[in-house]
Amino acid sequence: MSSPLLEQLIEALRVLPGVGRKSAQRMAYHLLERERTGGQRLADALAAAVDRIGHCARCRDFSEDEICPTCASASRDVQQLCVVESPADRLAIEDATGYRGLYYVLQGRLSPLDGIGPAELGLDRLAARLAEGEVAEVIIATNPTVEGEATAHYIGQLARQHGIRPSRLAHGVPLGGELEYVDRGTLSHAFGTRSEMG
Amino acid sequence: MSSPLLEQLIEALRVLPGVGRKSAQRMAYHLLERERTGGQRLADALAAAVDRIGHCARCRDFSEDEICPTCASASRDVQQLCVVESPADRLAIEDATGYRGLYYVLQGRLSPLDGIGPAELGLDRLAARLAEGEVAEVIIATNPTVEGEATAHYIGQLARQHGIRPSRLAHGVPLGGELEYVDRGTLSHAFGTRSEMG
Repeated sequence: MSSPLLEQLIEALRVLPGVGRKSAQRMAYHLLERERTGGQRLADALAAAVDRIGHCARCRDFSEDEICPTCASASRDVQQLCVVESPADRLAIEDATGYRGLYYVLQGRLSPLDGIGPAELGLDRLAARLAEGEVAEVIIATNPTVEGEATAHYIGQLARQHGIRPSRLAHGVPLGGELEYVDRGTLSHAFGTRSEMG
Repeated sequence: MSSPLLEQLIEALRVLPGVGRKSAQRMAYHLLERERTGGQRLADALAAAVDRIGHCARCRDFSEDEICPTCASASRDVQQLCVVESPADRLAIEDATGYRGLYYVLQGRLSPLDGIGPAELGLDRLAARLAEGEVAEVIIATNPTVEGEATAHYIGQLARQHGIRPSRLAHGVPLGGELEYVDRGTLSHAFGTRSEMG
């Protein structure tokens, strides 16, 4: 390699998900050949983000403030609380739906084998929040995986203990999907939970 | 978006080749959730690279020194000069072959419509280098595209003007390739330039 700094940059780029040696090389050359301004901007944005983005004290989503803008907003419905596994899931729901309630971001899912229990997911703080009495519905939007379902079950119990109604996203055949290509588990579930046509 | 800094990071990541909005989001979340140390290291490496990597005064490859280590090395053969379009091409040749000569990196190819002429590729400095009399063979390793071939032709003429023998990488069927899947142009060329078996 003709430059140790270039070698360091290529190694450092491999921290990005899905970026191997070859892509890292291509990215480094691209930045140096054609995008030095953009590269400088990326370096600044990354340093600022790593340094100043923490977690909202209320919902555990990423936030550079003590309380994130969503939790601080006066126009959100405090009676609804949507529980998601990750900030990316929260963003997906916010983008796709017209949901105007609040969120709670677990930053993970129950996984005893990996040492992730209720404490690591901040479920004690979620319980304290439910005890405040403002929340009327807990919408559980964990992923439909084994661990996500276990987490949903746990949170559902927690909600009922506080006299709050838990709800769960509907499962079934995706819109625009073809039955032939839907996995067996989903198809079987969708068949079993079929509803009468209106 | 819950954090302006996060939004800035996602936008800044899109400067990377092949990274759209969705991948940039995934990268930003990955860095913040699991790789803050790596993210900081990437920010530092990127800032240092953009700031301190320039071009070697001798071969125009990326270098943080006035003269890059390859050009400064006493163990390289100064009689051979390999001309490539980009630093990535130079690296590919250095990695794959046992070549021990020097390089000249054009940082582009002749493309009059884009305003890239001989001056932009430093061909005046290449001519001055050839006039020094040290180089005995110019190995032209531009890409086998229309513009690459035009560039090769131009450099070939330049070499001959200085009484130097130009050579060109062999074209043909790739090793391990199957004839059925080789493009027509390559196959036709390989057929036409077939050689007698030893």
